[in-house]
Amino acid sequence: MTIFRRTRLIEWGECDAAGIVFYPNFYRWMDAHYHALTNTLGFDQRRLQSDFGLLATPLVDTGCSFRSPSSYGDELTIDSTITHLGNTSFRLAYVFARGDVLAAEGFETRVFVRLGEKGIEKAPIPEAIRALFTPYLTPA
Amino acid sequence: MTIFRRTRLIEWGECDAAGIVFYPNFYRWMDAHYHALTNTLGFDQRRLQSDFGLLATPLVDTGCSFRSPSSYGDELTIDSTITHLGNTSFRLAYVFARGDVLAAEGFETRVFVRLGEKGIEKAPIPEAIRALFTPYLTPA
Amino acid sequence: MTIFRRTRLIEWGECDAAGIVFYPNFYRWMDAHYHALTNTLGFDQRRLQSDFGLLATPLVDTGCSFRSPSSYGDELTIDSTITHLGNTSFRLAYVFARGDVLAAEGFETRVFVRLGEKGIEKAPIPEAIRALFTPYLTPA
Amino acid sequence: MTIFRRTRLIEWGECDAAGIVFYPNFYRWMDAHYHALTNTLGFDQRRLQSDFGLLATPLVDTGCSFRSPSSYGDELTIDSTITHLGNTSFRLAYVFARGDVLAAEGFETRVFVRLGEKGIEKAPIPEAIRALFTPYLTPA
Repeated sequence: MTIFRRTRLIEWGECDAAGIVFYPNFYRWMDAHYHALTNTLGFDQRRLQSDFGLLATPLVDTGCSFRSPSSYGDELTIDSTITHLGNTSFRLAYVFARGDVLAAEGFETRVFVRLGEKGIEKAPIPEAIRALFTPYLTPA
Repeated sequence: MTIFRRTRLIEWGECDAAGIVFYPNFYRWMDAHYHALTNTLGFDQRRLQSDFGLLATPLVDTGCSFRSPSSYGDELTIDSTITHLGNTSFRLAYVFARGDVLAAEGFETRVFVRLGEKGIEKAPIPEAIRALFTPYLTPA
Repeated sequence: MTIFRRTRLIEWGECDAAGIVFYPNFYRWMDAHYHALTNTLGFDQRRLQSDFGLLATPLVDTGCSFRSPSSYGDELTIDSTITHLGNTSFRLAYVFARGDVLAAEGFETRVFVRLGEKGIEKAPIPEAIRALFTPYLTPA
Repeated sequence: MTIFRRTRLIEWGECDAAGIVFYPNFYRWMDAHYHALTNTLGFDQRRLQSDFGLLATPLVDTGCSFRSPSSYGDELTIDSTITHLGNTSFRLAYVFARGDVLAAEGFETRVFVRLGEKGIEKAPIPEAIRALFTPYLTPA
């Protein structure tokens, strides 16, 4: 199993008046982390459209639990894996940590979609992308 | 049971390059909706500190599921109720709709905290605030 | 001269760890205010594309000066006028106030653009839109 | 003269429905760049308070002009220098580029403040900080 890791320094403008992270930023970071993963794997949103005839991978379900407060200047390590790889949808798990201290745990369930005759519709995960995702799939 | 309702026009800058809402904004809207509720009830973050000796109501757990895409210019109706009122924590449910069409459903679990001798610690929900929240509590 | 006015309650998540507005939000509010103005006048971004064959009104130049700090819970009054209406570009002025107290003054210079043969190019302001903007034009 | 340089990959959620950067993000990036500079120099917002008895360096005046559109996936180089170092205030210049192409030019005028008897008041730039800033001062 491969883990996709990046670090991020928490910015002044990402904290609220209590000095801790304004929580929607964790979701913004998950989204950015996912896009960084796809960039690393070689297919960004533009490629998705030009090479695969797909539209995007919008969110179906999301969640995040907060374990300890993070503040301005803290460095967060963000680890992600893929915990489910279905026919049209997949689920990513995210772990945020400050050194050894768990900060938050989140997930995103995304679905591949294309523009069909009746508008936006689900589309099978392309085999080429499935192959790229598979190393990040966690054992059951 | 009372529902706290507000409407919101989706702004240009809240949508992504696919033209639909950049999803972390739903969490930003939930947070703003909660603060609007406390304003309506008469206790904002500053009052929480000055009148109750409390620090804030940080998030423990959050989630949001997306049912249909929302875009720039759409008017969202946001309804919230309180689905759990514990000793120190409580849970809010949010329903986002465009007219009759369900857009998203989310929740926030928050906890009352104060500054104790050993740092931030959980605190009982003050009786005055419990009384203000009770009309919004949904039947089991 | 007509002034386009809206009010806005400053949200918790819009303030930084010093308890005052994280300043890029003033620009977000100017942009939202401009889009609200176009909505009021009857042409949003989608209409711009479908009815006028234009792409958007991107920014050329922007600025904002801060006169007094604004905080969570403050109600801001935002007034805007059009201070220049050129051939392809126009300039908006914004005044932010908390009651009688000036909070900030900003401006945006925007240009009408269309998709030409060589990519994005400037386009004349359509006469119908010029007529809609004219009441908001301040005397020299 | 020393230039403070960092690079930044433009994220999906930072672009608007036209696929180009939602412009308030340039201000967010300037603010983050300034805080990164102070971190590099050894005094962040917390040190400012604990070591110098100061409150913050709020904005007095800001501006940004846009030279060419930037999109999702573009890598921006951000260069900053200090163009004015006064008694209590200073001004930073920022240049954003995609490779050799100029994307935007901005500035921030900030002022050192402390909490005085009558509230927030201007404070002289500490000599230690002036010395740290001086290498970044551009020749007149």
